Amino acid sequence: MKVAIIGGTGYGAVELLRLLHIHPYAEVKAIISHSSAGKSLTELYPHTDGFMQGNMETFDVAVLKEQVDFAFFAAPPGVSRDLLPQLVEAGIRCVDLAGDFRLKDPEVYHKWYKADPASQALLEKAVYGLPEWNKREIAEADFVANPGCYPTAALLGLLPAVHNGLVDPASIIIDAKSGLSGAGKSPSAVTHYSEINENMKAYKLGSHKHIPEIEQLLAEAGGTQQPVSFSTQLVPMTRGIMATIYANLQVGLSETELLELYEKYYETHPFVRLRPQGEWPATKEVATSNFCDIGLHLDERTNRLTIVSVIDNLVKGAAGQGIQNMNIMQGWEQTTGLWMLPVYP
Amino acid sequence: MKVAIIGGTGYGAVELLRLLHIHPYAEVKAIISHSSAGKSLTELYPHTDGFMQGNMETFDVAVLKEQVDFAFFAAPPGVSRDLLPQLVEAGIRCVDLAGDFRLKDPEVYHKWYKADPASQALLEKAVYGLPEWNKREIAEADFVANPGCYPTAALLGLLPAVHNGLVDPASIIIDAKSGLSGAGKSPSAVTHYSEINENMKAYKLGSHKHIPEIEQLLAEAGGTQQPVSFSTQLVPMTRGIMATIYANLQVGLSETELLELYEKYYETHPFVRLRPQGEWPATKEVATSNFCDIGLHLDERTNRLTIVSVIDNLVKGAAGQGIQNMNIMQGWEQTTGLWMLPVYP
Amino acid sequence: MKVAIIGGTGYGAVELLRLLHIHPYAEVKAIISHSSAGKSLTELYPHTDGFMQGNMETFDVAVLKEQVDFAFFAAPPGVSRDLLPQLVEAGIRCVDLAGDFRLKDPEVYHKWYKADPASQALLEKAVYGLPEWNKREIAEADFVANPGCYPTAALLGLLPAVHNGLVDPASIIIDAKSGLSGAGKSPSAVTHYSEINENMKAYKLGSHKHIPEIEQLLAEAGGTQQPVSFSTQLVPMTRGIMATIYANLQVGLSETELLELYEKYYETHPFVRLRPQGEWPATKEVATSNFCDIGLHLDERTNRLTIVSVIDNLVKGAAGQGIQNMNIMQGWEQTTGLWMLPVYP
Amino acid sequence: MKVAIIGGTGYGAVELLRLLHIHPYAEVKAIISHSSAGKSLTELYPHTDGFMQGNMETFDVAVLKEQVDFAFFAAPPGVSRDLLPQLVEAGIRCVDLAGDFRLKDPEVYHKWYKADPASQALLEKAVYGLPEWNKREIAEADFVANPGCYPTAALLGLLPAVHNGLVDPASIIIDAKSGLSGAGKSPSAVTHYSEINENMKAYKLGSHKHIPEIEQLLAEAGGTQQPVSFSTQLVPMTRGIMATIYANLQVGLSETELLELYEKYYETHPFVRLRPQGEWPATKEVATSNFCDIGLHLDERTNRLTIVSVIDNLVKGAAGQGIQNMNIMQGWEQTTGLWMLPVYP
Repeated sequence: MKVAIIGGTGYGAVELLRLLHIHPYAEVKAIISHSSAGKSLTELYPHTDGFMQGNMETFDVAVLKEQVDFAFFAAPPGVSRDLLPQLVEAGIRCVDLAGDFRLKDPEVYHKWYKADPASQALLEKAVYGLPEWNKREIAEADFVANPGCYPTAALLGLLPAVHNGLVDPASIIIDAKSGLSGAGKSPSAVTHYSEINENMKAYKLGSHKHIPEIEQLLAEAGGTQQPVSFSTQLVPMTRGIMATIYANLQVGLSETELLELYEKYYETHPFVRLRPQGEWPATKEVATSNFCDIGLHLDERTNRLTIVSVIDNLVKGAAGQGIQNMNIMQGWEQTTGLWMLPVYP
Repeated sequence: MKVAIIGGTGYGAVELLRLLHIHPYAEVKAIISHSSAGKSLTELYPHTDGFMQGNMETFDVAVLKEQVDFAFFAAPPGVSRDLLPQLVEAGIRCVDLAGDFRLKDPEVYHKWYKADPASQALLEKAVYGLPEWNKREIAEADFVANPGCYPTAALLGLLPAVHNGLVDPASIIIDAKSGLSGAGKSPSAVTHYSEINENMKAYKLGSHKHIPEIEQLLAEAGGTQQPVSFSTQLVPMTRGIMATIYANLQVGLSETELLELYEKYYETHPFVRLRPQGEWPATKEVATSNFCDIGLHLDERTNRLTIVSVIDNLVKGAAGQGIQNMNIMQGWEQTTGLWMLPVYP
Repeated sequence: MKVAIIGGTGYGAVELLRLLHIHPYAEVKAIISHSSAGKSLTELYPHTDGFMQGNMETFDVAVLKEQVDFAFFAAPPGVSRDLLPQLVEAGIRCVDLAGDFRLKDPEVYHKWYKADPASQALLEKAVYGLPEWNKREIAEADFVANPGCYPTAALLGLLPAVHNGLVDPASIIIDAKSGLSGAGKSPSAVTHYSEINENMKAYKLGSHKHIPEIEQLLAEAGGTQQPVSFSTQLVPMTRGIMATIYANLQVGLSETELLELYEKYYETHPFVRLRPQGEWPATKEVATSNFCDIGLHLDERTNRLTIVSVIDNLVKGAAGQGIQNMNIMQGWEQTTGLWMLPVYP
Repeated sequence: MKVAIIGGTGYGAVELLRLLHIHPYAEVKAIISHSSAGKSLTELYPHTDGFMQGNMETFDVAVLKEQVDFAFFAAPPGVSRDLLPQLVEAGIRCVDLAGDFRLKDPEVYHKWYKADPASQALLEKAVYGLPEWNKREIAEADFVANPGCYPTAALLGLLPAVHNGLVDPASIIIDAKSGLSGAGKSPSAVTHYSEINENMKAYKLGSHKHIPEIEQLLAEAGGTQQPVSFSTQLVPMTRGIMATIYANLQVGLSETELLELYEKYYETHPFVRLRPQGEWPATKEVATSNFCDIGLHLDERTNRLTIVSVIDNLVKGAAGQGIQNMNIMQGWEQTTGLWMLPVYP
C-alpha cells in the first residue's frame, strides 16, 4: 500500500518514516511539506541519508490521488482540519496525528484550542483512534483522529478502572510527565538545552488541550461526565511519558484482584503490558516501541488506587499508534510492523 | 565556631563542606569516616583539592570534645542513633541529616524503617528542624533532626494550606520526583547511568520512609491525623525535587487570595519564594541554593488546589537546611552563609 | 536459522536479542547465562516482557548442538577463549563480541589484556570481523572475532587514508569519546549517575586494550607497524562513539578529492555514509543503527586531515556488526535485518 | 566598589551576578540591556527573585559615570567595540567578556570574525586577561579583554610546555569539547534539547574564532608563530569544557618530570590544579568554580604528550576569570570572592 505523509518535517513525520520503513505492506510514496517543498529530507535530517529518494512536495489532491492509497497527517493544528476532508473525499483513508478531529463538541474544541473547529459533521464522522477502546469502529473508519500522547497514557491506565466502575470518577487526578520531544521540533526558550537540562518544570497546569480529550473518553467509558485534575511537567529526557494517576477505589477489591482485572481487560490487546505486583514501569522500558506498560498500587490506608502508565510519546503516543490504526483500518493484524523490542538501554 | 562532620564521604557531607567553607562563622575542624579514616578527602573527591588539610578520622568523643563545638551527622541510618547522644552529653550541639530522630513514636519508626528506634526519651528531646515551622524550638535545641528531602518540599508546600484549614487533610496526594543524588553515593543497578539516563522510574509506591514524617507534621499543623498518598519517582537529573501536591479546597478562596495567604505565611521566611499567578517553579531555579520555590493553581472545575514545590535535595533538603538550623541554634541570622543566587543555568 | 546467545545478561546480549528479533532468517533458541540460569530474561529486563519464552540456561555443548546452528558470544573476557572452541568443533559457527580472539599475537594480548591468551592456532584461525575490510575472509570463517567499539569507529575513519597511503601512519592521533553503555551493565563509581551526569571524564590514556587492535589492522592496511596515540573519554550519554582522528597528509589532495576518494572506497559498503563537505556527523544520527557516518576536514594551514567518525557502540560497535558478520558467513545480503533508519530524535 | 554589567540578559551576565553577589568588595549597581530595558531581571530569570532591585537600563555613559567605578561587558560581538571606549574615557575600568579586543591584529580579527575590528590603537591598548600569563599587565590595565572559554582551557594546558620549549609548536593539536551553555541563551536548532540530548556533535572544524586567539598567545609564549589544529565538539551537558591536547615532546623528560615542571609553573597560581600521575580531570570536578584542572600523559611509544585541561566555561571561561581580572586590576587578592569549592555532584 502506498502512503503519503503530510507535514513532513516534524518529529511525528520522521517517526512515521522510521516505522513505515520496516512495515511489510506499506510504503511511503510522498512527503508533503509546505515549508520545505523541493528539498530532500536528508538536508533536514542527515540520519535519513540513503533512505528517501526524491524531494518533499506541496499538497495537491489530484497528484496524491494518483500516488497513494492512505495518508498520515503529522502537521501543526489546523492543517488537517482544512486538508484532510479533501483527501477523504478523494477516497484516501487518513490518520490524523494532530488534535483537529479528536473532540466531538465544536464548542469544547473552540474553548480549549482557541481556534476554529472542523464542522460538526466531520467531527462526528471522525473515529477516535485508541485501538484498545474502539477497535471495531476504527476498522470501519474513513479517517481516524489519533489520540494525543498524554491521553493515550492516561486513558490506558484508567480505562479498566473507569469502565468497570472501580473508582470514583470525580476523584481522578493525573500527574503527567513528558520528555522534550513532545514539545516538537521548533526551538524555543523552554526547549533550549541549557534551560531544561538538569531541570524539571511544571507548565500549563489546568489548561492543557489534552484535558477535554481525556474527559470525553472517560465520560464515554464511565457513563458520567466529570472534570479531572491534570498536571503536566517536563522531564529532562527526549522520549517518554509517565502518567501517575490517583483515584478513590469504590469497590472492595485487593491489589491482586485489581491486577487480575487489568490483565483480563487487556488480554487481547498486545501493546498493553502489566507489571507484576510491587513493580512499576519506567519510561525506558517502552522506549521506541508501541507498548504501554502499566503498574498498580493500592494504598490500603487511604483506599486510593495509584496507576503508573508509561509510553513512548512518539510511538504509542503518535506515529506507532497511527500505524496501529492503519493496520486495523486495512484489516491487517494490528501488530504488523510494530512488534519490536524496545531499544534498551 | 569549630565544626565536625560525622560520615564524611557521602554527598551530604560533601555538600556541608562546600557550604561551610563559605560560612563566615563556622569552620570544619574534623571529618569523621569509619570507612575512610586515614585517607585524605581529596583521594575520594578530587574536586576538593586545595581545600582540606589533614585526613579523615575515626569517631572519638574525647578528641571531638577538644576539637569542636558543633557536629553534623551525615551518616547512614543507625549511626546517629548510636553516636549522637554521646556528643550531646559531651556538650556538643548536633544536627542530624539522617532519619534516626525525626519520628516521635518509636513504633512508627520501627514499622517504616524496619530497624531499632532510638530511645523514647531521646526521640522526644529531638527537635524537628524545619525552620519555617518551629524556629523557636530549634533555637533552644540540643540537637536537631533535619527533615528529609521529600518532606521538606512537601511540607513547605502544604503548611500554609493545612495550618489554616484550607484543604481537606484526607484528600492530600503528593506526587514527588527526585534527581539521582537523593539516592546517595553508592553505585547500584538503579543508579547506573545507562539504566536511569533518558528514563523516569516510579519506585517504593506507598512504602517510602518519608511518609510517616510528612504525616506527623501535617497532624501537628492541621490538628488531625490523616494518611496521605505519596508517590516517588526518579528523574534523570542529579539535583532537584519537585513535589506536585493535590488537595480539595474546603474554603471559598480564589487563586489570588490563596497566593496572598501563602505570601503572608512566608513573609518572614526568606528561603521560601512564591511564583506569581500563572507561573510555576522549575527545579533548576533553586539548584545549589537553600530556596524552596512554590507555585499554586486552583482548578475551579474540580475545586482542587495544586501546589508545585521545588528544592535542591542536597541543600534545602539536606546540608543547607542543616546549616540554617545551626545558624538558628547559634543565634545567628538564619541566612548566614546561605544567601546566594542559585547556579543557573 | 537457530541461534544461541552465550552471556545473556549484558547490554551486548540484549541488543542482539532486539536485532535478531526482527531478522527474517535467524531466531534465538537459547540464551546461556552462568549467573542467571533458571531465570527468565524478563525478570532482569522488564522491557522484554512478551518476547522471550523459557529461561536462561547453563552452557552445554551437547544440548546446544541439538538446539542451534550458530552462536554469539557476548560474555566477559576469557569466556569465549574457553568455550568457543568447543562450539566450533561441534560445527556451530560463532561470532565473538569479546576481545579474546581479536589479536593475532598472544604476547601482545597478554601485555594489554593482562590475561592468558587463546592458543596461537586459534588466534590465527580467527577472522577479524570488520566487513568493510575483509568481507571475503569473513564469508569463509568458522568463527569471527567481532571488532571492538572504538576500533570500529577509528578504523572505518582511517582505512581509506591509510590503505591508500594518504597520511603519515606515524602521525595518527585518535581522540575517542564514548557514551556510558560502553562500560557495560555492572554498576561502579564511574558509571554512577550522579558522578557522570553533566560530566566528561578522560580515562585509561595510553593503556586501553583497543590500542593494539587498531594498530594491528592499520599495519595490515598501511604496510607498516606504527604506534598511534589513542585517548578515551566518557561523555554523558548512553549510546554513541565519536572518534576524532588527526593525521598529517602526505599527498597533494584537496578536501573535495579526499571526500571523493572516501566515497569511492565505501561505494559497495552500505553501512558507511559520508557527510557532504563542510558537514560532520553527530552520534545521534546513527543511534540504534548499524551505520558509521564520517565527515572530513582538511586544514590547509597545517596540512592535517581531521576525520570525524561516529557509530552506535552497541550496534555497529557490537551486536549489529555481529549480525552483519553472521549475514556474510551465511551468504545472506549483509544488510539483512539491519537496514533500518536510526531512531531520531 | 560599584559595578555595572553591560549586556544583562545572557548567561555570562547572570553568572557575573551570581559571583559578584558573594564578592566582599564589589556590588552590582546597574544592569544594562538594550533589549530588556525597563524589565526586572526576575521576569527573565525567576531564580534571581529576591536579589535584584530595580529594572534593567539602557546604556548612558553620563549615568554610568555617576553610578559605577567598574564595568563588565557581557554583550554580543561588536557591542563592546563601540561602547567600551566611551566608558574607559570616562574613567571606568572595564573587563570585556566578548572577543572584540582579544586579537592584536585588526586583519586577523576581520578574517576570523568577519566583522569590523576595533581601532588598532585600542587593540594595542587592550590587555589580554589571562592572569596565569600576564598578571602584571592586567594590574595596570585600563581595560582587559577576557579570554575565550576554549582558549583559557587550551592555553593553561599548553603554556608550561610551550613557554619552556618542551614540545614542537608545529605539532599541537587541540581536541576541544564543550557543554551547551557555551552556545549562549538564544534558542536554535543546534541547542534544541531533543536534538542535542544524547548526542555529540562536531562543529566549525578549522574555522572557530578562538583559533587565532590561541595561536596569538602561543606565539608570544613560544617565540614562533605556528598554526594549530583545533576541533570543537558539543557534549550533552550544560557546563564544562575539556581540551585534550596533543604535542610531540622535543626534550628528554619523563612523565614525572613533566608533572613537576607543571606544578612549579603554576606554583603561585591558585586556580590551576594538577592531577597526580595516572589521573586525569573530569569537567564536573571544576563545575561552578574558577579552577582549571590539568592532567598529563606521556606516551613513550609515540613520544607524544597528552594534556587534559578542564574548566567551567561560564566561570574560568568567562565570568569568574573576569572577576579574577577585576581583583587584580583593583589590587585585591586574585582569589577574592572566588575561593569556593566546586559544586559536586
